[in-house]
Amino acid sequence: MSDELARIVDGVATGRSRALGQAITLVESHDQRAVRLLAELYPLTGRARILGITGSPGAGKSTLVAAMAKHYRAQGKRVGIIAVDPTSPFTGGAILGDRIRMTDLYTDRGVFIRSMATRGFLGGLAKATNDVVDIFDAAGFDVVLVETVGVGQDEVEVVRTVQTNLVVLVPGMGDDIQAIKAGIMEIGDVFVVNKADRPGADKTVTEVTMMMSLVEEHGDWIPPIVKTVASKTQGIPDLDAAVVKHHDYLTASGELDRRNRDRVRIRIETQLKESFMERVIGGTITREAYEQLLEDVLRKTTNPHDAAESVLSRVTF
Amino acid sequence: MSDELARIVDGVATGRSRALGQAITLVESHDQRAVRLLAELYPLTGRARILGITGSPGAGKSTLVAAMAKHYRAQGKRVGIIAVDPTSPFTGGAILGDRIRMTDLYTDRGVFIRSMATRGFLGGLAKATNDVVDIFDAAGFDVVLVETVGVGQDEVEVVRTVQTNLVVLVPGMGDDIQAIKAGIMEIGDVFVVNKADRPGADKTVTEVTMMMSLVEEHGDWIPPIVKTVASKTQGIPDLDAAVVKHHDYLTASGELDRRNRDRVRIRIETQLKESFMERVIGGTITREAYEQLLEDVLRKTTNPHDAAESVLSRVTF
Repeated sequence: MSDELARIVDGVATGRSRALGQAITLVESHDQRAVRLLAELYPLTGRARILGITGSPGAGKSTLVAAMAKHYRAQGKRVGIIAVDPTSPFTGGAILGDRIRMTDLYTDRGVFIRSMATRGFLGGLAKATNDVVDIFDAAGFDVVLVETVGVGQDEVEVVRTVQTNLVVLVPGMGDDIQAIKAGIMEIGDVFVVNKADRPGADKTVTEVTMMMSLVEEHGDWIPPIVKTVASKTQGIPDLDAAVVKHHDYLTASGELDRRNRDRVRIRIETQLKESFMERVIGGTITREAYEQLLEDVLRKTTNPHDAAESVLSRVTF
Repeated sequence: MSDELARIVDGVATGRSRALGQAITLVESHDQRAVRLLAELYPLTGRARILGITGSPGAGKSTLVAAMAKHYRAQGKRVGIIAVDPTSPFTGGAILGDRIRMTDLYTDRGVFIRSMATRGFLGGLAKATNDVVDIFDAAGFDVVLVETVGVGQDEVEVVRTVQTNLVVLVPGMGDDIQAIKAGIMEIGDVFVVNKADRPGADKTVTEVTMMMSLVEEHGDWIPPIVKTVASKTQGIPDLDAAVVKHHDYLTASGELDRRNRDRVRIRIETQLKESFMERVIGGTITREAYEQLLEDVLRKTTNPHDAAESVLSRVTF
């Protein structure tokens, strides 16, 4: 390990902001040193509470994340925020004035915000998000809030790796919103009806209760529904209580162990595939030969499956 | 190749519905025979027009897909529909009455509809979708319509593999929708303002035009904006004309070749990774030893990176 990397590892371990930023940048830029960094930091992980905040654009997720962050800060906790949603104000995606509400978070040294809005992360968005969660965790952050739009397979992978997932809904968006709800019903550990001062909030609560009865598998946990007005920080203590209760359930039921195991499995397998591809293309087969193979498939003298097999046949398992 | 597989290949090649359904089921259920099937069908592909229909739930994508399918049917073309959006009425996700509008499509033998709403496809949703597109293509379908919500990295992968992507918007959904638009602006080849009989349609067209001016890279293609009322089949000929024009551009500019090349590259690499994992876990390392390795990572006696490397060190490249 180079001196610089040792310095970053040390800096993250002692929670220094600059080292934290450098560590995350290494992960995001897919720097070779990131794997070593993460290996070094791994023993320090396992203490943070990892929460997902999922919902469609316009549900007020970012405002809710900001309100929760402030709530945890008031308890003296350090908070990491990862915005996976490309439309989040945290990622600069929104055209609205929401950014203003987040200003005091940006200047709070106990809060670290990172956007993962860039598409096309090598090895997948879920892996990159996981890595950043680990860095926050190793740096001693008490809570990590992961904001994601929740639709899309990769986002579902992200959600699978959090401990408690909050699904955020809003009242009065009409029938169209039903479709959205249907898609994310299965992934909620806690439901939040945000903007609950709007007309129809109770109707939405009833709808969610009804839709929940249609979901077949819940295990022993029946997801509570919490009403919030995030912009006025209303309902946040109730939401916190629901999150704590869910964490108690996770621990008592052994579900937390299962989720941790899943997370480790995903990480090992992602790393396996990635290192494999690095060694095969440009190693087992030269880049030129690989491009020629692509050409052959395009000209239909072979097919993708046989092309892949011809490469694999040169590897000894 | 088994007799049964040969029969399915033959059935798909001659466009028989039953064989088509069986082939898709093999792909979706990740049956070992699927790889052989796809290899056999591959030489028959390359003729279908592949269109993506992308937009948030509630934009009327399914209704638009239905209207387009009817339009192509009137031209005597055969149409394959793949619904990737879990909230699509095609996938049974919606609670609304939309399904009724699709009824005559379900009874038309020149139309084949398949839902890809199930999450957790092995090897990814983009691969599974690609495979089904190939099956439709090999079966001689003239047009394949892929309906996707367009948010999420895996969905973006799906969009990357279509030839022309239509981004569907609706007027009058308020400021919240701006955020959605911002996220999918870069992926549109043609923009559709659907439900254009609602107030504010022209305002939406203006907004899209303005937002488009903010997108840096367009190449030589400036995406046209088409107004439709899909439920009344209004604007569909205009939309078809825009799609044809885009296809001409793709061909003339060499962009079609580039997209095809991308598609082949994704397919080979997905196949490589998948076959690799099959050979490594349960082969190079026994399942028991692998589970033990997982346990070691969980107990923090090692880390995910070093665990993956220890497996890879037994493979000769």
